[in-house]
Amino acid sequence: MDRNVYLDMISLEEAQQRITRHFGSRRLPKAMVPSARAAGRVLAEPVFARASSPGYHAAAMDGIAVLAETTYGASEGRPRTLVVGETAFPVNTGHRLPEGCDAVIMIEAVNPVSDTEVEIESPAYPFQSVRKMGEDIVATELLFPTGHLITPYCVGALITAGMFEVAVYETPKVLIIPTGSELVALTGEGTAQLEPGRIFESNSHMLAAMVERDGGIAETHPIIEDDPAAISACVAKAAEEGVDAILIIGGSSAGSADYARTVVSGLGTLLFHGVTIMPGKPVLAGEVKGVPVFGMPGYPVSAIVAFEQCLSPLLASLAGRSFEPKATLAVTPSRKVASKLGVEEFLRVKLGQVGDRIIATPIAGGAGTLTSITEADGIIRIPPQVEGLAAGPEVSCELLRPASAVGRTLVAVGSHDNTLDLMADEIRRDAGTVRLSSSHVGSMGGLMALKRRTCHLAGIHLLDPSDGSYNRSYVETYLPDRSLTLVNLVTREQGLMVAKGNPRGITGMEDLTRDGVRFVNRQGGSGTRILLDYRLKALGIDDKLIDGYTRDEYTHMSVAVAVLSGTADAGLGIYAAARALDLDFIPVVTEQYDLLIDNDYLDTPMVTALLATIRSQRFKTRVLALGGYSTDTTGEVVARF
Amino acid sequence: MDRNVYLDMISLEEAQQRITRHFGSRRLPKAMVPSARAAGRVLAEPVFARASSPGYHAAAMDGIAVLAETTYGASEGRPRTLVVGETAFPVNTGHRLPEGCDAVIMIEAVNPVSDTEVEIESPAYPFQSVRKMGEDIVATELLFPTGHLITPYCVGALITAGMFEVAVYETPKVLIIPTGSELVALTGEGTAQLEPGRIFESNSHMLAAMVERDGGIAETHPIIEDDPAAISACVAKAAEEGVDAILIIGGSSAGSADYARTVVSGLGTLLFHGVTIMPGKPVLAGEVKGVPVFGMPGYPVSAIVAFEQCLSPLLASLAGRSFEPKATLAVTPSRKVASKLGVEEFLRVKLGQVGDRIIATPIAGGAGTLTSITEADGIIRIPPQVEGLAAGPEVSCELLRPASAVGRTLVAVGSHDNTLDLMADEIRRDAGTVRLSSSHVGSMGGLMALKRRTCHLAGIHLLDPSDGSYNRSYVETYLPDRSLTLVNLVTREQGLMVAKGNPRGITGMEDLTRDGVRFVNRQGGSGTRILLDYRLKALGIDDKLIDGYTRDEYTHMSVAVAVLSGTADAGLGIYAAARALDLDFIPVVTEQYDLLIDNDYLDTPMVTALLATIRSQRFKTRVLALGGYSTDTTGEVVARF
Repeated sequence: MDRNVYLDMISLEEAQQRITRHFGSRRLPKAMVPSARAAGRVLAEPVFARASSPGYHAAAMDGIAVLAETTYGASEGRPRTLVVGETAFPVNTGHRLPEGCDAVIMIEAVNPVSDTEVEIESPAYPFQSVRKMGEDIVATELLFPTGHLITPYCVGALITAGMFEVAVYETPKVLIIPTGSELVALTGEGTAQLEPGRIFESNSHMLAAMVERDGGIAETHPIIEDDPAAISACVAKAAEEGVDAILIIGGSSAGSADYARTVVSGLGTLLFHGVTIMPGKPVLAGEVKGVPVFGMPGYPVSAIVAFEQCLSPLLASLAGRSFEPKATLAVTPSRKVASKLGVEEFLRVKLGQVGDRIIATPIAGGAGTLTSITEADGIIRIPPQVEGLAAGPEVSCELLRPASAVGRTLVAVGSHDNTLDLMADEIRRDAGTVRLSSSHVGSMGGLMALKRRTCHLAGIHLLDPSDGSYNRSYVETYLPDRSLTLVNLVTREQGLMVAKGNPRGITGMEDLTRDGVRFVNRQGGSGTRILLDYRLKALGIDDKLIDGYTRDEYTHMSVAVAVLSGTADAGLGIYAAARALDLDFIPVVTEQYDLLIDNDYLDTPMVTALLATIRSQRFKTRVLALGGYSTDTTGEVVARF
Repeated sequence: MDRNVYLDMISLEEAQQRITRHFGSRRLPKAMVPSARAAGRVLAEPVFARASSPGYHAAAMDGIAVLAETTYGASEGRPRTLVVGETAFPVNTGHRLPEGCDAVIMIEAVNPVSDTEVEIESPAYPFQSVRKMGEDIVATELLFPTGHLITPYCVGALITAGMFEVAVYETPKVLIIPTGSELVALTGEGTAQLEPGRIFESNSHMLAAMVERDGGIAETHPIIEDDPAAISACVAKAAEEGVDAILIIGGSSAGSADYARTVVSGLGTLLFHGVTIMPGKPVLAGEVKGVPVFGMPGYPVSAIVAFEQCLSPLLASLAGRSFEPKATLAVTPSRKVASKLGVEEFLRVKLGQVGDRIIATPIAGGAGTLTSITEADGIIRIPPQVEGLAAGPEVSCELLRPASAVGRTLVAVGSHDNTLDLMADEIRRDAGTVRLSSSHVGSMGGLMALKRRTCHLAGIHLLDPSDGSYNRSYVETYLPDRSLTLVNLVTREQGLMVAKGNPRGITGMEDLTRDGVRFVNRQGGSGTRILLDYRLKALGIDDKLIDGYTRDEYTHMSVAVAVLSGTADAGLGIYAAARALDLDFIPVVTEQYDLLIDNDYLDTPMVTALLATIRSQRFKTRVLALGGYSTDTTGEVVARF
């Protein structure tokens, strides 16, 4: 194992410059394509018009064509009579002006007198309502320069100008080679259960979709096992057969089976290996027999960042296209985020307009967490020379969705509940344009987000130990001067989740202190943690005697996963989570889960849609089908503050 | 001819509401597609994960897997020795944790001692460098809601979650029927010269490209002549065969051959005919046997606006997709523009960043001028309740190109010269990302644009009659306090353009006053107009004696077109224009055409690229090939102010 493999790590800027220096002046060959099929392509040559448009002086209105001179003197009360076929010629828009005519009088200004005569009450001036020859396009003139991206509109102009085919740059062809002995290919039997330790090979399909998004053609090679000779042979063959770029996925890191560097160095030249970005660090670039070859990280988010920073600009330049960076928006981070000095971090965030600010809520998760980017609306780049992002001051955010979608996003921050997913799904059915974006930081986290005005609403289930009530007293204590509405979402069962068949024979909270019983807890500030502490106190149980009391997870599902995977024997959570993973469930208590809504947004179309959704029978039916829920008071206003 | 056809004209908002009321809740059927090919499609059902990711506790780093407990107490100076295969297990990133391990120590922190032993100098904590099972995706949890647009990233997540196919909405199929007896189809012999009065049928190809841009599938029907029975039969058959929308192009206006309304009313229901927008007014919508049918205007820019306002939202909603309006930017109009009260105008503009403002330069041209939209960077919508757009105050502009492209646009305003086209083409070859955007308003117009700081540079050729010099004295008079650089572009011949063979026997300016000689002039403020007046004065010719002295055109090419089409016998212009249209040319004078550059931008990459371009041998060679030009001083600095 060579641990010095990254000693030559470089900045992203330097990496991009090396790619540009090496490949930036390269253009793909030209191809002639029919203009009708050329939208989205880039011109490899300038286009000069062959035909003028209009190709003749043409009527710009429906009406009669005249020689303007013959109409001089006509006025209201002193109409001029014209003879159809002699001094007046009916024309429709686009018709060629008849010989001897130089103007058109629109039909609304023409009074029919007889079958052969019409009257007009004002004169025409020369070229009135006439589209002159060449008014739009003059034959021989430049229509579009080299490098012009052909839009659908341009298709119309090309054909109008008599250009039925055009010279464009060929489309870049990219070969994608997934490597790794742990990978399982998608086949007909792909839906079978995976053996432990193996994973579905998804990166090649994801990168292929990105190549196509960027205007290229992707070819996906079958998986190659961790065998440097096989990878090398494959790359050498592809380079000779003349693809325009090669991506080797996996094996670009520094593990014992990371062969990408050896392969590229052995066959050609290495441009760099390792870039000070996160995710994306292990990316590698080189040249083999004139073909750009990239070692792509195996972590999917690393692969995405590496592709978009290194491949997207290259594919654009090969195809003669300007590389357009993502649109940006000024956003306000909802919390501070630490980052590593010397590394440029690509922080994934959810976005939503709350009041007059666009709030960016950072998403947890590393380079292996694909949902950190599928759920993201944008990326904040934290520069290498700073140590983190502060909450508050506006920063620039690269958009992953159109800015207009951000304005239609309902921002929910708070406790996690499985019915939030159903809510997110149902709201899309009923009010297609509204999106629900939930961040799970616990009930107290939700209250604080409302306090800081970084969300529209919070999902909370906060037990008041003094009287057994839910939520109200917390709102009065922590948000005393705010105008808010508390709406019930569901009543739900909380209980102990244990492995299927309950092998430890756990029957209640008292068993948590037993020897050999490992517990998994929820984070401080979560409603479930407060509930646990309340029950422990009521039962007189000392939390220090519980093995795992200090081990925190952030959602019901991650507690359930801990139990399922055998790293814990019990955890407190909701029935829906236990049922989802087929765990046994010992009910402990029924609790109230409410939505606390900022009244500033109560009458917005988004919140109106949300309330209509949770009050719908279809939503309630789906909630009840999860089990462990009651919807008797769902959608009812619990309190107004 | 029914001149009351538009009496029921409605607003765009009302038209869009009628479409939504009629078709808004309609969704296309579901189709199962492989996840690997699903990017760009919209989910017709929610996706719940089938597999967790990771599916097991996995090493997050390359290194050794351990049981954390066995490492407690290790410290610098007091290393702990671990035995490979007993207490330490080499793992690469992504590997499953071996049975009994709960942490990973990264390879950089592991010191090999022997073939079988390693040392560590700090303890591991449980789950250190471990990606826990379900950390990214938990089986059974919602991955994406109904209506979710699948991105390339989502392709990765779907496959990772074991979802190899997904239910998406079908793609909308649109039949496009071009109508009009004047239309000529693109065929193998399509490049042949058109008969006068006929035009190439381009709209169906343009609209087909727009349908595909919007995610639909377009089928283009052969041209149907102006025959209501044939159009009606075609629409009826298509509606029964089950396309998702039908576009009838042409015949939606009020001329004698405008049958779209009759066809739709006869077969089904008319929703509206005529919308108070410009361009786009004659659009028509209806329903035939359940299928939405649109009458599209024949003017291409009208068709574009009608499509984007009526069809684009409908295609999105049929496919379950959110309709995203175009991104907008705050821009400063460079001049005022009149508009008609009661009509919403879609004004096409060129955009460029000049100083700290985005300047929007309106483009002349009506609904038939396709280049008014192919050259546009954006559209300013002038609301129906106002009479025009003022110069100065910022307004919102819908973008037709990415905002990043606007920042790379060099804004040239001034006199027209054919070498500007070559410059626009060459600069794209040499400096791929810079775009040249020229507006032709004459030399004085260019000076005024520089004065108002609405351009980076102006092309000017202004003769000082007092001493025969060019440009300098004008700059001193009109821009006395500005820091500017005058760079020569070319020296060029101006002369009289006359029809091929010079049928009127014109030999010089003196012939312009002859009986029967019709002249065509350039607009006031143009360098050519100043030159003409100077020569007329020098020769003692009274301009009142010239027939056509008051007829203005705005470019050399439009003067040439007037001569070519026979509406004028002579016009003053440059040799390149005469040669382009194969006219005869009688030289009158040689003049200097310069670029006047605002020094604020002289050192920007854009102007640097421009100067490098015009100083290149390739540019000069192309200029000389046009004829009538000298490049002896091209690129030289003429004066600094």
